[in-house]
Amino acid sequence: MPVAIAGPEIERLIQLLARLPGLGPRSARRAALHLIKKREMLMAPLQAALQTALDKIEICRTCGNIDTQNPCTVCADPRRDPSVIVVVADVADLWALERAHALNARYHVLGGTLSPLDGVGPHDLTIDALVTRAHDAAVKEIVLALNATVDGQTTAHYVTDLLQDAGVSVTRLAHGVPVGGELDYLDEGTLSAAMRQRTPF
Amino acid sequence: MPVAIAGPEIERLIQLLARLPGLGPRSARRAALHLIKKREMLMAPLQAALQTALDKIEICRTCGNIDTQNPCTVCADPRRDPSVIVVVADVADLWALERAHALNARYHVLGGTLSPLDGVGPHDLTIDALVTRAHDAAVKEIVLALNATVDGQTTAHYVTDLLQDAGVSVTRLAHGVPVGGELDYLDEGTLSAAMRQRTPF
Repeated sequence: MPVAIAGPEIERLIQLLARLPGLGPRSARRAALHLIKKREMLMAPLQAALQTALDKIEICRTCGNIDTQNPCTVCADPRRDPSVIVVVADVADLWALERAHALNARYHVLGGTLSPLDGVGPHDLTIDALVTRAHDAAVKEIVLALNATVDGQTTAHYVTDLLQDAGVSVTRLAHGVPVGGELDYLDEGTLSAAMRQRTPF
Repeated sequence: MPVAIAGPEIERLIQLLARLPGLGPRSARRAALHLIKKREMLMAPLQAALQTALDKIEICRTCGNIDTQNPCTVCADPRRDPSVIVVVADVADLWALERAHALNARYHVLGGTLSPLDGVGPHDLTIDALVTRAHDAAVKEIVLALNATVDGQTTAHYVTDLLQDAGVSVTRLAHGVPVGGELDYLDEGTLSAAMRQRTPF
């Protein structure tokens, strides 16, 4: 039980900061002190940025991306290939693929993966909306960019089944050796997948 | 160079979060996404807490503590022993001593330690104000609770010299074995200090 030393307002700020991923109670206290010391340079801008985010940030009604415009920057971009939709579990995955410049296509954010143990069923995700989008005549390919975990692959199989009549080809990310990775440290599943999917050199 | 995927407002939020101690660019992105997802439960309360902090937080004009009242809660507390002033370098140290319930006394925050290499001289710290406070007839003891580093100990010696005519006894924190510490892992300086300052059992 922390002692309230510096007034309830500061304790409340520390408690809220401690709920950010990556910050614990001790680092939240350091962050709060840092904010208080850098009042003009950091605390005021952060407060304003949060206010702006609260005012402006929306969920894209087409793909589920997070943006300050709706449809989002990606969906509104005419240079994006409208025939390919990359399916991701989470906005963080969308951002990761964008940082990698992986494919100049559109996205669909499922909002999670199927997980019977955690009580996440098909209706908790945006699978219906994906099926509707896939039936658009312009859409030719659905890329399943889901985690290579049990939940991710279960979701991939479930979505693939639903897309059978949509007239699209369903693809998924390649398994293989990470760039810069050493064979010695890779698990057997990855190595055998990389061998099966070997490519001409 | 990160790609601006989701509008400049979100990028700005990520950049500001990345300037908090303990968060890097990657964890700041995760924190921003977490805030956006927990819009009502976390982002709005954090925004409000920062607004309150900006409106209310002040530096105590007596001791240099950070609080929403001035003089601060500690200085205003009549149950505190007014004859002892604990000198700390930073507000974080004050909070650490308060969490430990170390002493029911008042404080004086120097605002750092003397550090010729970093260009921190006596006039960058609140040493003059400390000397003035120490001349108050009610003050009997000044406890130097400064880091056991070169800069901390340099500051302790400098302050002690200035307090010679103030009619106070100047003390410092004991060196010794940390509670729960194992002798085997302690450095020689700590061990020999603990031996010199051994106490009756």
